[in-house]
Amino acid sequence: MKVKNILFIMADQLRWDYLSCYGHPHLKTPHLDNLAKKAIMFESAYVQAPVCGPSRASYYTGRTVFSHGSTWNQVPLPIGELTIGDYLRQSGIKTCVVGKTHMRPDINSMNRLGISKTTEIGSIVMEPGFDPYERDDGLHPNNIMKKSEKKLSYNEWLNKLGYDGNNPWDSWANSVDGEKGEVLSGWRLRNSNKPSRLPEKHSETAFMTNRAIDFIKETKEQWFLHLSYIKPHWPYIAPAPYHNMYSQNQFYPVQRSDSEKNINHPVYKAFMENSISKTFSQENVRETVLAGYMGLIKQIDDNLGRLFKFLEENGNMQDTMIVFTSDHGDYHGDHWLGEKELFHEQIVKVPMIIYDPSKEANKTRGKKEKRFIEAIDLLPTFLDAVESKASKHRLEGSSLIPILRDEKISKWRESVFSEIDYSFNEARKILDIGASDARAYMIRNDKWKYIYYKGFPPQLFDLEKDKDEFNDLGQSKDHQNILNQMKDILLERLTDRKNRTAADDEFVLKERDYSEDGGIMIGVW
Amino acid sequence: MKVKNILFIMADQLRWDYLSCYGHPHLKTPHLDNLAKKAIMFESAYVQAPVCGPSRASYYTGRTVFSHGSTWNQVPLPIGELTIGDYLRQSGIKTCVVGKTHMRPDINSMNRLGISKTTEIGSIVMEPGFDPYERDDGLHPNNIMKKSEKKLSYNEWLNKLGYDGNNPWDSWANSVDGEKGEVLSGWRLRNSNKPSRLPEKHSETAFMTNRAIDFIKETKEQWFLHLSYIKPHWPYIAPAPYHNMYSQNQFYPVQRSDSEKNINHPVYKAFMENSISKTFSQENVRETVLAGYMGLIKQIDDNLGRLFKFLEENGNMQDTMIVFTSDHGDYHGDHWLGEKELFHEQIVKVPMIIYDPSKEANKTRGKKEKRFIEAIDLLPTFLDAVESKASKHRLEGSSLIPILRDEKISKWRESVFSEIDYSFNEARKILDIGASDARAYMIRNDKWKYIYYKGFPPQLFDLEKDKDEFNDLGQSKDHQNILNQMKDILLERLTDRKNRTAADDEFVLKERDYSEDGGIMIGVW
Repeated sequence: MKVKNILFIMADQLRWDYLSCYGHPHLKTPHLDNLAKKAIMFESAYVQAPVCGPSRASYYTGRTVFSHGSTWNQVPLPIGELTIGDYLRQSGIKTCVVGKTHMRPDINSMNRLGISKTTEIGSIVMEPGFDPYERDDGLHPNNIMKKSEKKLSYNEWLNKLGYDGNNPWDSWANSVDGEKGEVLSGWRLRNSNKPSRLPEKHSETAFMTNRAIDFIKETKEQWFLHLSYIKPHWPYIAPAPYHNMYSQNQFYPVQRSDSEKNINHPVYKAFMENSISKTFSQENVRETVLAGYMGLIKQIDDNLGRLFKFLEENGNMQDTMIVFTSDHGDYHGDHWLGEKELFHEQIVKVPMIIYDPSKEANKTRGKKEKRFIEAIDLLPTFLDAVESKASKHRLEGSSLIPILRDEKISKWRESVFSEIDYSFNEARKILDIGASDARAYMIRNDKWKYIYYKGFPPQLFDLEKDKDEFNDLGQSKDHQNILNQMKDILLERLTDRKNRTAADDEFVLKERDYSEDGGIMIGVW
Repeated sequence: MKVKNILFIMADQLRWDYLSCYGHPHLKTPHLDNLAKKAIMFESAYVQAPVCGPSRASYYTGRTVFSHGSTWNQVPLPIGELTIGDYLRQSGIKTCVVGKTHMRPDINSMNRLGISKTTEIGSIVMEPGFDPYERDDGLHPNNIMKKSEKKLSYNEWLNKLGYDGNNPWDSWANSVDGEKGEVLSGWRLRNSNKPSRLPEKHSETAFMTNRAIDFIKETKEQWFLHLSYIKPHWPYIAPAPYHNMYSQNQFYPVQRSDSEKNINHPVYKAFMENSISKTFSQENVRETVLAGYMGLIKQIDDNLGRLFKFLEENGNMQDTMIVFTSDHGDYHGDHWLGEKELFHEQIVKVPMIIYDPSKEANKTRGKKEKRFIEAIDLLPTFLDAVESKASKHRLEGSSLIPILRDEKISKWRESVFSEIDYSFNEARKILDIGASDARAYMIRNDKWKYIYYKGFPPQLFDLEKDKDEFNDLGQSKDHQNILNQMKDILLERLTDRKNRTAADDEFVLKERDYSEDGGIMIGVW
């Protein structure tokens, strides 16, 4: 069956193991669990990069970071890259975003090529690739908002509701009340277990859910909606009652080992020494943050319950593909680290639930799928689902439709690939290396995780014997063969890069006129 | 000293060993030899690809084919790539081409982005990057000329001189007279030792030389000229008296070995089996072709004599950098192969003579330099020479100015890198592989040449013991360590790729506001 609409939901910084369907013993997410029962739940889904911008750019372009070049959050996506919107527009599908993309347009190239932001084409390039609707990247510090030309609709909505100030995103939604009536900043981790100054129904998560419902109600033509929640990403401020639903007994124990402090790897060491990691290694930080983090996830699940109910009532479940995933995880002090940007399972593995409405998918409903998939597989899946004729010669992933519909597959990938440009991280400064030298590449298969660091020794973990990744074998003499094998896989992945973007496969394969009737004759006697 | 103008001369398909300064015992090229005496002659200069389009795109962008993505002759350069013109324009330097670039503009992206060919920006994108002057890609078969909208100025000039027909490029310049007064096609190799139907002064080489002199005379501002001869590329038709200046006694003996027929490598075998290689393995083909090939080189040298004399008289030698090189070589039946597209020294090594007018370069004049350089080093050299402030964050080569001026260099590359997409070659069909699977990568250092073939075993040659590259050690058990070491170097080169094109190093390295005064606070307690 040809899928009509696609709803692609993303939560930001959501770890794979913080949903009850993925095994969290205390954080109950019944609405997502219920979706998983109708869908396939992928248990080995990996992102292309352990940080927002590049990970998302890979979801949107179907290409590795190595190929698309948006290597970190503030690095624009080069103008030559195509995103989901550019592909689906060719089939006349309205393709919009509600929420975060973390993408920046390539303004330098737009200037060089004389493309104005205000034209129709320019506005699409600005998005990038999507049709404008309700993009909101969800981080609005006051010093940036002061300079911003663009009004934020969430702020305008809050102002209309009576919340005052120039930036109620900051002063209301992401602030908390102090004991003496003072306003405390949600940016500070110490406040993460206190309630937002707004009620739940006025939170960002509720607003974005409303806007998604608006979009679906308004849109009469075939559509693709990327509903992209800003949360549970920091500021970790949840509205009541979510802010203190969870406490010590419901938290996962911290996953770190004293032995890790002796791991003799310069890059890992530099990450452990950065200020965020040091903060997360202090008493109470993790506990305070997890209250907010888990509450925000629970709140998303409740909002999705509201959205899914609407979809049922609106008749969308018959023809709409629904994907739920995340862009990467969060360390919360595991491995003595804070935030993200390295390759432990907490970070690169993500939840991935895909509901295919077609009857061919009936036999896989509720299945838990162990095969390795990657973020770059989604765009080919979407194109397959709507039976797009767009050229796929730039795409580096594989459509999941054969898995979703239990079709015979002769060969599937046996490893996954992820990579990081950590040049913007404090770790680069600690290591005192250049702007182009802070790169690392991960290959993970059933048994091994291998990390190739540019200019530094590799890391290697035996995931069968050491599932917590505490024991680095990267410099083990006994593992030279494995290290070489993993390096071979990395080399294969890098040379899988699809660099011939400006000519499609058909162009390569077509017969050429090398005849004597006036064509180019090469090497003819 | 700051260089004022730059003259970047390229011959097409010129082997490194076909100039007398590079050791040809019979083909005397006094004008280039004379330039070499004032310049540095690089003895280990390598191209980024063994075929015209991608090799040139690397010269023009300063990036490997792996990065720029124009993987073969007909594959457009993606719109996001910048060429020499885009860089030098930032310094107000007029940057033009006389002759061949073999580049195609990225029309699909132009259409998507609404860039019209007829605007000023559009015309630059079409060139690509250069200011329009006298670009002429030099291959004008009748079936393409019939459909072409654009008039060819060389044809217009010939028509004006009285040579009739729609395409005198074909019917006069690249045709010969038969014994019975019939016109024979210069496309046919059998005619390569017969004279062109035109006198030398009306040949393409003479026309392009004239146009270069015109440009230099006309241009009052600072300039960069890429004078790019179409010859000695086929059709191998030289005008009299060049067509039969050289015969059997002046030809290099063919460099092939019966043992090569037993080399058990699928890709090399497929290349030996393609129709061009079979033709060049026949009697007489090589001998007929070499007459034309060597004559065309001699003719270029004589035209360069005329040009260099003009430059002397015009006062350009004081402030103009002059580079002479080629885009790749020609097998002529060596190794049982015809044409190009593999990595033997005959193909990937090129002549490279660089004249730096500055007095700091006086101490290196006439030097023969053995250090490894690559085509991608030229653009950084040009930018250095004119003291450009353009950002160099996309560039993958190194400026040669320190070598030209004998400055202290702490570290220089110890190997060179080249690569091929042979999907357009008959060899791909023989191997029956897909459009994206026909890729190979070469690493060559002082002793070894290693070739990594996607999906096939590697090749390895010991250049100390086997300088003719007859003995493939790619499957030798005794060479596993070397193979692994060479693979490591390849991995390093691939990860040297500069993919962060849309943000410069300064952007990465600048301090960011993570303060409490309204900025983004990450991980602060």
